[in-house]
Amino acid sequence: MLTKNELKYIQSLGHKKERDQASLFIAEGPKLAEELLHNQPGVQHIYATREWIEKNTAVKVPVSEISAVELSRISQLQTPHEVVVIANQRTPPGEPVLNDQLTIVLDGIQDPGNMGTIIRIADWFNVQQIICSNDCVDIYNAKVVQSTMGSIMRVNCWYKDLNHWEPGVDINVYGALLNGKNIYSVGKVNEGLLVIGNESKGIREPFISKITHPVTIPKVGKAESLNAAIATGIIVGCLVNG
Amino acid sequence: MLTKNELKYIQSLGHKKERDQASLFIAEGPKLAEELLHNQPGVQHIYATREWIEKNTAVKVPVSEISAVELSRISQLQTPHEVVVIANQRTPPGEPVLNDQLTIVLDGIQDPGNMGTIIRIADWFNVQQIICSNDCVDIYNAKVVQSTMGSIMRVNCWYKDLNHWEPGVDINVYGALLNGKNIYSVGKVNEGLLVIGNESKGIREPFISKITHPVTIPKVGKAESLNAAIATGIIVGCLVNG
Repeated sequence: MLTKNELKYIQSLGHKKERDQASLFIAEGPKLAEELLHNQPGVQHIYATREWIEKNTAVKVPVSEISAVELSRISQLQTPHEVVVIANQRTPPGEPVLNDQLTIVLDGIQDPGNMGTIIRIADWFNVQQIICSNDCVDIYNAKVVQSTMGSIMRVNCWYKDLNHWEPGVDINVYGALLNGKNIYSVGKVNEGLLVIGNESKGIREPFISKITHPVTIPKVGKAESLNAAIATGIIVGCLVNG
Repeated sequence: MLTKNELKYIQSLGHKKERDQASLFIAEGPKLAEELLHNQPGVQHIYATREWIEKNTAVKVPVSEISAVELSRISQLQTPHEVVVIANQRTPPGEPVLNDQLTIVLDGIQDPGNMGTIIRIADWFNVQQIICSNDCVDIYNAKVVQSTMGSIMRVNCWYKDLNHWEPGVDINVYGALLNGKNIYSVGKVNEGLLVIGNESKGIREPFISKITHPVTIPKVGKAESLNAAIATGIIVGCLVNG
């Protein structure tokens, strides 16, 4: 059973302001619940249907049984799925370290699906740092969390004002632009930044002028552009694998 | 002004059955409208707000002016955007030709965003043929159409029963599997099939046993999997660019 106050509180976590004040976020579904319970101590509370609870008897955090109707009231998914997890937001350990690893910089990624997918790509290719411009979508937005498929617990994300953030003069800055070097001939890259731009505007000033190594995914066909997450997957894969 | 019948008719095209019977589909927004008007003669009717009509005076197909309220009633987007296009479905020219080009085979792609993005990837890399298993999402689903960003007008898509479809013994069949050859060392591939599996089940029997060249995107980090469209982008890019 959910009290009125619990219901109100969980629903309030759908809003960034309340989410950040409480330093919490919501993740849904058995798969994500399993990832979160497995990977971090920060799960605060679980609301789940009897079905889920009976399959997960060894869980060591507080669990409240709720009905399917209650689930649908706290869920932010079109098709709610057994369990809603309230978890602590992660604070990255200090400032990003740029000189010994590849770091992704996102300049205005707006689409939650793209953001989540990019975090998942980073996790797959072991890119452990993402720097988001302040106008990127919130990584704890419900749709972002769902599309990360759990990778949100492993990749460190910072928000920065890219108008005033300086990566440092000795840092190589790769950027996805139209007339750069063919990404399939760049070869392996062990450190530096990879900048991915906004879905429609691309990389904006002033950060675009910081790019030292423009790279391009050659277009052989007729599509006007590639989706930002697809471009990220292709470029990161090439840089990591050489 | 929309008549009641027009409203009912346009809304009915949101359903696959009615869409297929009429051999029509709906595309929305100025960008997609422009692509469709530019690339094909098959636009049947346009419903648009005065704003769009005033910017597009040279359009040669029937245009009905509608109000913002009417737009929101026929739109399938969360944020309707100026124009709804009713266009003819394209019939691919005959059967797919497999022996002189790369063809993508989709085994149970369910997510409309993935399907649309894969069509867009194909168009970018000049892959002109996609074969979909019968249980793939409909390519004329509104969300698919929107995510193709117009590429739906250029890539030929067929639906096949993959339980009974035989590509032919001399056709190389690449498939994204867990223990295949590193995709970054496969090199350029000019013809054959590339099979991409369902979002959670992967490539299924019986088609999985037709794979002659298993390929893998090496995992360096910890994510359990990559999104199906991301995997497609990475693999197609590598095969096309060598």
